[in-house]
Amino acid sequence: MASMFEGLQLPGGADFHVHLRDGAMMETVVPTIRQGGVDMVYVMPNLLPPITTVAMALEYRKRLQTLAPDVHFLMSLYLHPSITPEVVIEAKKAGIRGIKAHKVYPSGVTTNSSSGVQDLGVFYPVFREMMEQDLVLNLHGECPSRDDVTVLNAEERFLPTLLKLHHDFPRLRIVLEHCSTEAAVAAVFNAGETVVGSITPHHLSLIIDDWAGDSINYCKPVAKTPRDRMALLKAAASGDPKFFLGSDSAPHSIQAKQGGQDGKGKHAAGVWTQPFVLSYALDALEQGCRLGLLDSGQLTKKTLAGFLGEHGRTFYKEASSERRIIVGPSGSTQIPEVVESKDHSVKIIPFRRGQYTRGLDWM
Amino acid sequence: MASMFEGLQLPGGADFHVHLRDGAMMETVVPTIRQGGVDMVYVMPNLLPPITTVAMALEYRKRLQTLAPDVHFLMSLYLHPSITPEVVIEAKKAGIRGIKAHKVYPSGVTTNSSSGVQDLGVFYPVFREMMEQDLVLNLHGECPSRDDVTVLNAEERFLPTLLKLHHDFPRLRIVLEHCSTEAAVAAVFNAGETVVGSITPHHLSLIIDDWAGDSINYCKPVAKTPRDRMALLKAAASGDPKFFLGSDSAPHSIQAKQGGQDGKGKHAAGVWTQPFVLSYALDALEQGCRLGLLDSGQLTKKTLAGFLGEHGRTFYKEASSERRIIVGPSGSTQIPEVVESKDHSVKIIPFRRGQYTRGLDWM
Repeated sequence: MASMFEGLQLPGGADFHVHLRDGAMMETVVPTIRQGGVDMVYVMPNLLPPITTVAMALEYRKRLQTLAPDVHFLMSLYLHPSITPEVVIEAKKAGIRGIKAHKVYPSGVTTNSSSGVQDLGVFYPVFREMMEQDLVLNLHGECPSRDDVTVLNAEERFLPTLLKLHHDFPRLRIVLEHCSTEAAVAAVFNAGETVVGSITPHHLSLIIDDWAGDSINYCKPVAKTPRDRMALLKAAASGDPKFFLGSDSAPHSIQAKQGGQDGKGKHAAGVWTQPFVLSYALDALEQGCRLGLLDSGQLTKKTLAGFLGEHGRTFYKEASSERRIIVGPSGSTQIPEVVESKDHSVKIIPFRRGQYTRGLDWM
Repeated sequence: MASMFEGLQLPGGADFHVHLRDGAMMETVVPTIRQGGVDMVYVMPNLLPPITTVAMALEYRKRLQTLAPDVHFLMSLYLHPSITPEVVIEAKKAGIRGIKAHKVYPSGVTTNSSSGVQDLGVFYPVFREMMEQDLVLNLHGECPSRDDVTVLNAEERFLPTLLKLHHDFPRLRIVLEHCSTEAAVAAVFNAGETVVGSITPHHLSLIIDDWAGDSINYCKPVAKTPRDRMALLKAAASGDPKFFLGSDSAPHSIQAKQGGQDGKGKHAAGVWTQPFVLSYALDALEQGCRLGLLDSGQLTKKTLAGFLGEHGRTFYKEASSERRIIVGPSGSTQIPEVVESKDHSVKIIPFRRGQYTRGLDWM
């Protein structure tokens, strides 16, 4: 019997949340994009320093394009006090697609400006111009941990802020990035059509027990309960154009993931999924069926193509891929234990290291 | 102004849940017990292989005693199919104080016997004899993670099992080890007087955000929400003899904590608190006052002495310490980044590595 999805032909996937880094890390990561079944990526601007000008974004895109000429790179800026309405207009003209906000909260929620937390109100002129210019706002939707806010409820506590923004800027297209809770899925579902949610393959796969004791699976927002995972699987399998793939693929060196050179520090948050991004998502959906959480009848070619790229392309007003991928049999490809840069200076551990997944081929 | 607790004289503390290991690890850990302000410890039997016979326990005690002649070691056995009512009688005669049950669940809860999970009913003859012989049952109270049970609710889901045991063996003295939730504190509080709870200094100090991304703070049961931490602080500060110190101090090598030699594996669960165990607890209580969670007026000498040893000694029917410690000023002692065995073969990272705590002196 053929394994689920085997032989399925899908349009080239699109991943609407990727971290591609810089230097040797970038040179290692970018060439794996196509291997993951993806020919369009929305590039996050969190470099060091972050990409806050159009010139920086264009220069970065040039370097990315050289490493992967057959991938379409959509660029974004990092929300920062230097971003003004004028920068928004310039960005639109230059083809920049959106602005990423990592830490915005309603006025008065925090006084902790030293940690880079930004007051929402300060950016209202920017959001207004983004709405006019039709740029997308990408939200990392978590409140800062303090008092009774923890990594567990930080996303749910952010949802009123999302809805306030949506209320105040109803035509502003907003992506709630890497939805991780049932509450986030419901909020996106119930909001107007300009609010959508991206979902990562690792949040489709993991619960808290999977990262407790395994920092390779540790990311922000953290993977939560089985009930939350189920809500994400159902959203991905729903065919609803509001939900689409954004992997938040976030490579870190082994050292950074494991607590620094001496092993005494903290673990960097982030899961690296780029080289197998569609395979991971398909595996998670198949597992959802095996566990009885999903009905395999739901997972039509249209639904899968929608979640894995078409819904996102439509939201970002991009054409479908003209290329096609064909899905290999389940378990046909072993995920490496580690991926090294050519000069051996960088070693990255991929998600589900050492396990088997399905291969993908470009037709 | 003197710092909180500075100059306070307390009876030597007692720690009713310690992992002292074997070999070079044991030789490194045991000499730190007195430094922590403690002269009595209740020794957990989870060696490899676990201590399941009286002879093994007595032999282990002999080795421990040699390393720390001025510490009183109370020994326990590991609940295992080889433990029979006859072994219980023999244990009592030999001065063994209790039996540790790591994985017992009500019949039918799990069929996963391969992971060492034990059916509760099998041990009823043992529990009956323990009740007759007045041996203590030490419970690691967590259900196995499956379906909707995760590390977050595993303890709360175990509480009906605790209460069923208490109902069926009302005179059996039971310790719910390392309470980590408000629900566990309430269950112990509401149960009869034979049911008590031990509390660790790290659960008095940490919430989930502290171990997410820092495997040195990762333990089982995991530290949970601010509300749970507050319930533990209140229990420790309550003066209620049902609650006392059991540190679950659990040393692991740096390698084991950080994912093995190659950094690609999982992190061992456990926090090592032995060398500063009373200091950590006092720091957590002081912080509880600073955060407004506790009233400093509660923290009388009697309350502190009770939580830090006297309540446990009473429950275990041991006399008070004849020795006294004096509490140094807050922040007077730096916690090392790492503690090495004499032969440098073992390196252990202590809780709150590199931070400052209050010193303690034996009078």
